[in-house]
Amino acid sequence: MTDNAQSGRVGYRDIADDLRRKIDSGELPPGSRVPGENDITSRYGVAPLTARHALDVLKSEGLIVAKRGSGTFVREFKPIRRVSPDRLKATASWGAGRPIWTTDVGTRPRTESVFVEVEQPSAPVAQVLRLDDGARVVVRRRTYVVDDKPVQLATSYYPEALVAGSAITEIDTGEGGAYARLRELGHEPVRFREELRIRMPREAEREALELTQDMPIVLITRTAYTIDDQPVEVSEMVLDSAAYVLEYKFTSQD
Amino acid sequence: MTDNAQSGRVGYRDIADDLRRKIDSGELPPGSRVPGENDITSRYGVAPLTARHALDVLKSEGLIVAKRGSGTFVREFKPIRRVSPDRLKATASWGAGRPIWTTDVGTRPRTESVFVEVEQPSAPVAQVLRLDDGARVVVRRRTYVVDDKPVQLATSYYPEALVAGSAITEIDTGEGGAYARLRELGHEPVRFREELRIRMPREAEREALELTQDMPIVLITRTAYTIDDQPVEVSEMVLDSAAYVLEYKFTSQD
Repeated sequence: MTDNAQSGRVGYRDIADDLRRKIDSGELPPGSRVPGENDITSRYGVAPLTARHALDVLKSEGLIVAKRGSGTFVREFKPIRRVSPDRLKATASWGAGRPIWTTDVGTRPRTESVFVEVEQPSAPVAQVLRLDDGARVVVRRRTYVVDDKPVQLATSYYPEALVAGSAITEIDTGEGGAYARLRELGHEPVRFREELRIRMPREAEREALELTQDMPIVLITRTAYTIDDQPVEVSEMVLDSAAYVLEYKFTSQD
Repeated sequence: MTDNAQSGRVGYRDIADDLRRKIDSGELPPGSRVPGENDITSRYGVAPLTARHALDVLKSEGLIVAKRGSGTFVREFKPIRRVSPDRLKATASWGAGRPIWTTDVGTRPRTESVFVEVEQPSAPVAQVLRLDDGARVVVRRRTYVVDDKPVQLATSYYPEALVAGSAITEIDTGEGGAYARLRELGHEPVRFREELRIRMPREAEREALELTQDMPIVLITRTAYTIDDQPVEVSEMVLDSAAYVLEYKFTSQD
């Protein structure tokens, strides 16, 4: 602890606390410029190294972001709200509830670059879909973007035997998407399990999601089951955690 | 890009890729020792700086952890599975589904250090609980630990007017916990909304959860509603993201 609080002098933690308070209170709103090293040095009467250390603390907390050549700014957090289950009916019955975090309801990720292939599944995907040895899967890979910035990589797997010949094997799955096609095939998904893990990104993920700082990612694996408990789809999603608020609604009767 | 792939020489990314593959395949299982700088230098014929850079990549990805004085090891990921909704009924009807990530079912966090207080709520808590100006809340703060390592900080808020005089205001809430008491009071929670955000920890959170590396945290805000849509509890949870797999189950009828 190089902090000088005990000696009555201002340390980097004091400065970080002060700036954090200003960010939390809205005195320094999202997108606004944070005092630079020179400002801090003269304002708090500290050495440049102390000023830099204070800013490093806030950077590591993800509260501020340095933009090359133009300074340091309060991070803008206008996340996408991803709601599960997301159905009109659910929304209606939940109208009275008030969410705690404000989100940009206008922001809807746009699907970009869809790839469809038929492949041998990995062992975990084969197990979850309960496939026989050698059975193949139809794989749909796509990227979701907001303002040209990728926010989610999604890969969905379907048993080839189940969906062969349907629009699920085409780039455009048609009106209502893959779930509408599965319903037409007599395999409507009605139950869902999502599993979430959080970790720091690997280099390939950092590049694919264009993550500028060391920000964490969320891995979501979603399995969709029919009323007969048959797994018909597994999706693996990789989300830029800074871009999302994830919301889940459920009842004790589920 | 100090990588020398184009010149045919081994770069730090090649070494990181090779070690990552061994970790993913299980050749280097969780808890096993990772080759040190000297090992890598001689095995791959690279400079010590290249070896260190390769290990830094895997550290930043959270795949390996340095233990002071004893070397570097593959991170052990034996997470706690947090299931929502977690009811016997739900578990039974979901028996056939197979989770994708293996978790340590034996690991159950233990509650430690419970504090109960009556306070003025913050503005967001007052809004979510729809409290009148000046109305107070009963606050229950506790820490969940596994093997003496804190994994979750949880704070729950209840309208004082609703729970005054009940065991919810005491350290021990009694058989069935706070939800059983709310049911007895005629305010059984039956609907739940959870909102998740992920970010890097602040210093106080890093210290409270004893996070050794720069690993992300999960913030969960859970609101519990009665059948009449009345909010009766708000809980704010801060989770060590490396300690958990979060699972949500829901149906399209929710």
